[in-house]
This record gives sequence, C-alpha cells and structure tokens, in this order.
Amino acid sequence: MPFISTKVNVKISKEKEEILKSKLGKAIELIPGKTEDWLMLSFDDQCNLYFKGISEDKIAFVEVKIFGKATQAAYAKLTKAITDILNQELDINSDRIYIKYEEVEHWGWNGNNF
Amino acid sequence: MPFISTKVNVKISKEKEEILKSKLGKAIELIPGKTEDWLMLSFDDQCNLYFKGISEDKIAFVEVKIFGKATQAAYAKLTKAITDILNQELDINSDRIYIKYEEVEHWGWNGNNF
Amino acid sequence: MPFISTKVNVKISKEKEEILKSKLGKAIELIPGKTEDWLMLSFDDQCNLYFKGISEDKIAFVEVKIFGKATQAAYAKLTKAITDILNQELDINSDRIYIKYEEVEHWGWNGNNF
Repeated sequence: MPFISTKVNVKISKEKEEILKSKLGKAIELIPGKTEDWLMLSFDDQCNLYFKGISEDKIAFVEVKIFGKATQAAYAKLTKAITDILNQELDINSDRIYIKYEEVEHWGWNGNNF
Repeated sequence: MPFISTKVNVKISKEKEEILKSKLGKAIELIPGKTEDWLMLSFDDQCNLYFKGISEDKIAFVEVKIFGKATQAAYAKLTKAITDILNQELDINSDRIYIKYEEVEHWGWNGNNF
Repeated sequence: MPFISTKVNVKISKEKEEILKSKLGKAIELIPGKTEDWLMLSFDDQCNLYFKGISEDKIAFVEVKIFGKATQAAYAKLTKAITDILNQELDINSDRIYIKYEEVEHWGWNGNNF
C-alpha cells in the first residue's frame, strides 16, 4: 500500500513517464514488504514550483506514503534510489529534490481498511 | 475541518463533480462530528496515475484529512461509502481505489488555528 | 525543509505568484529555524474546490509540511500570516481559507535523509 507522488516543474514525456514508473516500481522494494504489486503512482509535470525563492532551476518534490512504518535505513536507501532516478531521467540536480515520507495508520482498498 | 482530495485518471464532468460533491458531503457524516458545513473538497481528474505498473485501468487515489482523530470503525464506514460513490459514479473498480486517512493536529481557519 | 502547497480556485498570474512566493518566503521565518533558503513552494491555481458544498466562492487550501516540529504559538502566527497574504493578494476571504500542518519525521534532500 505505498503511494508515490512525483511533482516536477519540467515536462515529462509519456515515454519518460513509463521509464520512471518502472524504476520506481523497482525502487519501492527497498522498503521491506513493499512491491510494485501494491504501488500506486502519480506524476504531475510542469508544476509551479520554487526552491530557495527560485523557479528557474529544475525542481522535484516527491511524497512517499506507506501503510505502516519502515526503518530509517530503508528510507535512506529509497531516498538515494529516487534521487538517482530523477537525476538520471529528468536531469534534476540532487540538491533540488525533496523526498518526504508519510507513515499512514488508516488506509483503505477495495472498500475496506487494511 | 475535514478535507477530501479526489484524484482520478478519468474525466469528471461538471455535472458529475456536483454529484460527487453532494455524495461526499453526506458521506463525511460517518465521521462523528463532521458535516458538509466544514468540508472542503478538491477534485483532480485526468491525472497521470499508475497502479500495479498499469495506467490503462480506471484508478482513484483519495486522501481524507481530518482535524483530530476518529475510530477505526468510522474510517471503515467512510472507506466503504467513498468506494461505493466512486464505483457508482465514475465506474472505477473498488480494487483500483485507495483511500488514505490523515489525522491532523494543527489546522487553521479564518486566521486562527483550531 | 519546509514545503508549502497552495491550492486555490482562482487564477494566479505570474506576477502575483512571484509576490506570493516572496511573502511566503518571509512568513516561513515565523517558524523558528526555518527560512526561504530551505523552502520549497508549489502553486496550483484554478483548482476544482468546494467549501460547505459551494464552489462559487474564492477558496484556498494550504498545506505546510515541515521537518520536525514547532510550537502551537509558531503555527498560530504562520496561520495568521498566510491567511493575510492570501486575503490581500488573491482577495480570498479569511473564512474560506484552510491551512493544514504536517510534521514530518523522514525527509530526504540531496540523496540523503536529514
């Protein structure tokens, strides 16, 4: 039951989106027990983003929401992996990428809560 | 002080949006003390969503944010209600709908925090 | 490591967005230790929002996400400041503005978590 929202101020082509989807689907396995089989993704491109008061740089804001909790070590690995993906695929500098985690207690799917 | 964000990858017509608005305004009463009188809603249609690595299915990601807390039983009822609404009105399969809850401690309205 | 997302149902011109950016960059200093140097902003205008079942009013939903915690007093000041900014710059009534806070435990930047 993870969800990853990716907001960037650059354009994401459909081809690139498919690549990001596949790479994030692999990266989520860095959180024990999580796989692409339960992963939902959202991509928002050409967003109006600012970092340090500037909008001219390429910027990314990623939110990872998981049901339950994970270790600091697992989150550290996932931050590294997602940062590398966005850096390689969208040419966004690592120091212009925020990745924020949310541990969720109540999460519904298929009409019921887990 | 609840807020419900509905993100789907299908189109929502203005007529359909009004229906969803009314039904969600009723459903929120399943959380004790919450009514449409304090409910804010956001609808994002035609989002770029993937579930299980696939974007061709109809998909919904709903976030319910409430000031304070509620019981598991109340959340379970609301999950059932919202799932039914999206299934009936937008023809999204129940097993393609995530509903995530966030309990909020600090919430401002009208210039002050509750 | 703060992030402020501003969703409104009115149009935000580029000139107005720059003004909002500057004012929010100053307002964030009301949270001790936070400055525009680490602030990321997102602006979504012309959103499909409803409050109290109505979409005709001007409406704003703001999410402030910070790494770590702050005091109730600091949040109260920031709510007042952000409400005033949106009221003055976008002519949104204070009682049509929600400001929600999220205290984040795990936050990544530049490939590592704080």
